Amino acid sequence: MIIVMSQSASREDINNVERKLSQLGFRTHPIFGDIKTVIGAIGDKRLLNTQEISTMPGVESIVPIMKPYKLTSREFKQTPTIVNVGGVEIGGDKIVVMAGPCAIENKEIYIDTAKKVKEAGADILRGGAFKPRTSPYSFQGLEEDGLKIMAEAREITGLKLVTEVVDTRDVELVASYTDIIQIGARNMQNFRLLKEVGLYKKPVLLKRGLSATIEEWLMAAEYIISEGNQNVILCERGIRTFETATRNTIDLSAIPVVKEFSHLPVIVDPSHATGTWKYVSALSKGAVATGADGLIIEVHSDPNCALCDGPQSLKPSKFSQVMEELRKVAEAVGRTL
Amino acid sequence: MIIVMSQSASREDINNVERKLSQLGFRTHPIFGDIKTVIGAIGDKRLLNTQEISTMPGVESIVPIMKPYKLTSREFKQTPTIVNVGGVEIGGDKIVVMAGPCAIENKEIYIDTAKKVKEAGADILRGGAFKPRTSPYSFQGLEEDGLKIMAEAREITGLKLVTEVVDTRDVELVASYTDIIQIGARNMQNFRLLKEVGLYKKPVLLKRGLSATIEEWLMAAEYIISEGNQNVILCERGIRTFETATRNTIDLSAIPVVKEFSHLPVIVDPSHATGTWKYVSALSKGAVATGADGLIIEVHSDPNCALCDGPQSLKPSKFSQVMEELRKVAEAVGRTL
Amino acid sequence: MIIVMSQSASREDINNVERKLSQLGFRTHPIFGDIKTVIGAIGDKRLLNTQEISTMPGVESIVPIMKPYKLTSREFKQTPTIVNVGGVEIGGDKIVVMAGPCAIENKEIYIDTAKKVKEAGADILRGGAFKPRTSPYSFQGLEEDGLKIMAEAREITGLKLVTEVVDTRDVELVASYTDIIQIGARNMQNFRLLKEVGLYKKPVLLKRGLSATIEEWLMAAEYIISEGNQNVILCERGIRTFETATRNTIDLSAIPVVKEFSHLPVIVDPSHATGTWKYVSALSKGAVATGADGLIIEVHSDPNCALCDGPQSLKPSKFSQVMEELRKVAEAVGRTL
Amino acid sequence: MIIVMSQSASREDINNVERKLSQLGFRTHPIFGDIKTVIGAIGDKRLLNTQEISTMPGVESIVPIMKPYKLTSREFKQTPTIVNVGGVEIGGDKIVVMAGPCAIENKEIYIDTAKKVKEAGADILRGGAFKPRTSPYSFQGLEEDGLKIMAEAREITGLKLVTEVVDTRDVELVASYTDIIQIGARNMQNFRLLKEVGLYKKPVLLKRGLSATIEEWLMAAEYIISEGNQNVILCERGIRTFETATRNTIDLSAIPVVKEFSHLPVIVDPSHATGTWKYVSALSKGAVATGADGLIIEVHSDPNCALCDGPQSLKPSKFSQVMEELRKVAEAVGRTL
Repeated sequence: MIIVMSQSASREDINNVERKLSQLGFRTHPIFGDIKTVIGAIGDKRLLNTQEISTMPGVESIVPIMKPYKLTSREFKQTPTIVNVGGVEIGGDKIVVMAGPCAIENKEIYIDTAKKVKEAGADILRGGAFKPRTSPYSFQGLEEDGLKIMAEAREITGLKLVTEVVDTRDVELVASYTDIIQIGARNMQNFRLLKEVGLYKKPVLLKRGLSATIEEWLMAAEYIISEGNQNVILCERGIRTFETATRNTIDLSAIPVVKEFSHLPVIVDPSHATGTWKYVSALSKGAVATGADGLIIEVHSDPNCALCDGPQSLKPSKFSQVMEELRKVAEAVGRTL
Repeated sequence: MIIVMSQSASREDINNVERKLSQLGFRTHPIFGDIKTVIGAIGDKRLLNTQEISTMPGVESIVPIMKPYKLTSREFKQTPTIVNVGGVEIGGDKIVVMAGPCAIENKEIYIDTAKKVKEAGADILRGGAFKPRTSPYSFQGLEEDGLKIMAEAREITGLKLVTEVVDTRDVELVASYTDIIQIGARNMQNFRLLKEVGLYKKPVLLKRGLSATIEEWLMAAEYIISEGNQNVILCERGIRTFETATRNTIDLSAIPVVKEFSHLPVIVDPSHATGTWKYVSALSKGAVATGADGLIIEVHSDPNCALCDGPQSLKPSKFSQVMEELRKVAEAVGRTL
Repeated sequence: MIIVMSQSASREDINNVERKLSQLGFRTHPIFGDIKTVIGAIGDKRLLNTQEISTMPGVESIVPIMKPYKLTSREFKQTPTIVNVGGVEIGGDKIVVMAGPCAIENKEIYIDTAKKVKEAGADILRGGAFKPRTSPYSFQGLEEDGLKIMAEAREITGLKLVTEVVDTRDVELVASYTDIIQIGARNMQNFRLLKEVGLYKKPVLLKRGLSATIEEWLMAAEYIISEGNQNVILCERGIRTFETATRNTIDLSAIPVVKEFSHLPVIVDPSHATGTWKYVSALSKGAVATGADGLIIEVHSDPNCALCDGPQSLKPSKFSQVMEELRKVAEAVGRTL
Repeated sequence: MIIVMSQSASREDINNVERKLSQLGFRTHPIFGDIKTVIGAIGDKRLLNTQEISTMPGVESIVPIMKPYKLTSREFKQTPTIVNVGGVEIGGDKIVVMAGPCAIENKEIYIDTAKKVKEAGADILRGGAFKPRTSPYSFQGLEEDGLKIMAEAREITGLKLVTEVVDTRDVELVASYTDIIQIGARNMQNFRLLKEVGLYKKPVLLKRGLSATIEEWLMAAEYIISEGNQNVILCERGIRTFETATRNTIDLSAIPVVKEFSHLPVIVDPSHATGTWKYVSALSKGAVATGADGLIIEVHSDPNCALCDGPQSLKPSKFSQVMEELRKVAEAVGRTL
């Protein structure tokens, strides 16, 4: 940690900061520049409340040298984490595809879609039983009835399940049905919910918040891991920018950045990122070529009838074709699908 | 609602959309342009799942004509709402000032700060007992012990209380202590939490999300109001942009926009918006002159010792001086403080 | 074009708008909703100054139905444009790679780099002779001396040239040396410069502005094409967002969006987009898999000595390896490199 | 300047960086932490090309301690700069108001508007003769004929003039007519244009770019000042964010930030920032209360007929009323108008 003193800081200000750091267990090394002084502080900043320093007279700013996350970092664990979901490995050579409708609306259609995505080669079945919707007047999900339908689809197809939880009070229930617990973008900094899912061993799919930096996203993972659950899968799903041609701006550069700073696997959601089924094929290929460990794609037997997010759903036939294309791209970058 | 058909839409596509809209209870009016056709649909879009239309063959886009919120809108209620907090009116002529430390750390300091902000003219005392922190290693709040300290400070000073709730499981507890329940920026789209506080009659301070549009913010208010609680106070606290000189970018234009589209009162948090106590005085005056109904300002007896957000806290003496300056600005725009 | 009247608009307001539109040569179709009235106006909006309408009493907003660009649009020209740069085709099956140093600093190093990128399979040589730099104290380029070095490198290697112009007064000079004129991100809305390069027949590489929407980018292309120069190549180079882990956020979803709305070829600059050479390989593959028609990559014989943008330059050996990887990805999506 | 070495940097890497810095004239101070080493480098970073260091093996990042601008900084010149425009002082106690239409379309209307804004108390007359327009099909300005009309309006009213220049080739012409040369938001990083206006003594109104950080804005000022022209007035005109309710997001926090880091005066353009005349009054008051040194407001005798930006123009009667309101706010913050 480097403490930058302002140009007008007095010698006494500098001494006070050094004394304080020393009390807090840091070793200090001041460097007296021509105009400003900076103080190097050696010790673990994560244990420190930096405000105690940043508000002292003469302090201009504090520059952290170490990342704020620890268990999530590549420095802590140098080999990539492979999350095992009942035999399906996420983070290994094989690109894992999760597919299915946004919401579960109707048992027959859901099971029909499940069979078709299985046939096309998907590994994991998605579906929403608890839906976070912008409007209170929109369909909010079938709740436990939806989870039951998902379980039935798993029995029929053998696909593993991923579904979202939105309330700390529902974590136990959701965990009892699903194979992967999803934390949605809007809940990425719902810290109580992160802690709650951290108490289980179930893999967690952690979506990046709409305006979350990669560092904040990794800090959200840290919340889960620090409670004891190391099975975290990151999911890039687009960030909010000024561009309006797509629903969000998919940030594929997040893939190599995450791979550099963390050991966790990262997948991409091109359906929510773009908001338009027409762009899903192109961005799925782009994500795999960039290094994603998997994809989560919306597929719906009848997109015209979807109660939510229809415009971004692929029909099963189109999905099947996308899978074929992806296979070639996966091979081109030395992976399988 | 206007349905824009693509240039390549066939006559049959157009007929199908009209037929579908008609089944859904809309009256339709097609306009055949030289290149494209648009279809006007008369009826309440809020009751409709627009995806059923947007995914039909030949449909390019849907343009909503009405706002998605209803109870929150100025059209629904034309007179400004005044929220009454045990006698303190928010949204009336008087600018209401909420002040106090970010977190409650220590009873003596908290009560000392409370007395001082009361003396300087604040109406409501802030303080955090449950803190949503970016890092799991940061101080998370004193929880119920903090609420007890707040209640004691209320007894001593007569100030009303505002404090944040972060978990649906704590709403009852928090509501039993506080006068205003705060929903923080990170929970603006924690829809279950919004619904939960909507079940109480307690006033709710609803902070704008870091990357929430004004429309989404008003939709979050709609969640609360649609459950029966009309006592919603909006709070602008800065949005996330590319600028790094301030922690967030305070969006004061949100004030006249909210006033045009909604009847709800709106206050401003210059402390969190800027992240720096040096800018709080200037932006407080700016907010009042722009038309804010109130302010929420961080004040701490000893900012150097604050366990969170110290750099943005004012000392009581500085706060007192800001209040003096604000009084003049309030009068200049025909209000009191 | 749809004119949305406000809820409080009178019958007379509506009549006045219809009369005005009629005078301006539009046919009008009012639709009287339960709450609001909208007026459909048939005619070419591009010839109209919409402010004349938008400021009339009772008008709430105007919704355009047609895109504001014409010559750039896919509707105007349905087959993809292939820009021919002295035999090198951009926009065809072959992925075109432009490579070279950011700035030309030294003849020997430049020519050495040119030979190496040629050897690795690049088609076009990049280099900056006029550099737009954030600081007046940074190296501003060798100007005409730089152009002469580029011409020599072309003679030796046979590579075509691309270089930036930053001043209307230099367009003639730059055009006399280069094969492609580059308009940088900061000049994407330097409309005079766009018009000036529109007067030549030389291909133009038009970089997307840091905060330009795709629509504004296509409008910038429209400026060039409307002066008579149809040889426009679009270049995505990252947009500005709140994320700081990369210099900009590369927006690969722009590729399918541009392909849908325009006939122009689009390439990607992963070097400037990410600002870090480590991420160039991953994003280059991602761009090609997503559908880019080419790449522009920074390569420097000795990145440690580059007077500008060194951290994002690849060494020739690394570039050569990236080209190998790209070849496989290109083939996987049915293209060559 | 602090050089942060990566965790894996070898002792030799560290020595090499120290040797290099020493060659470049810096004194170095390494600090060996438990995990990483940082090297403090004492000397003027502005003279250094940091890439030479940042690309050396083992270097993780470089943290600048000093700001990149010099002549623009408050450290260089501690007293606020007052720009004198033919007797009108900008940056002093008096709030200066610039007003007038966006574009000059018609002599009679322009002169009529000029008289009315003069009457209402404006000091400076605005008007555009060269218009940077998003569409090539929009009105581009009357060019020199427009400047002549402006000069005539000055003669009649005594108001000083401010008008935009968009091409290096026109600077001499524009400077010969106007009292303040405006650099528009889209040209904030048109470095050649900045240098060109730096060669004159005429005051320059430098608008902030749509996605420019405050630091980049001050660097643009540095371009002008470093050529010899110290008469720079900064103008905040809104930045681009995800919010769509206003055309841009006005960043009033830029006012105290600029005042802290620079000696230059700063004014605000609420008309372009919001894009809606309805919000101009509120934000004008907010800007003055926050500490702006002036305002530039669009006023048009007949907003319904404005060939550009009509929706954001005030009618003279409304402007007159806004001036009355502003006077009170100015007094409340110890200034005049």
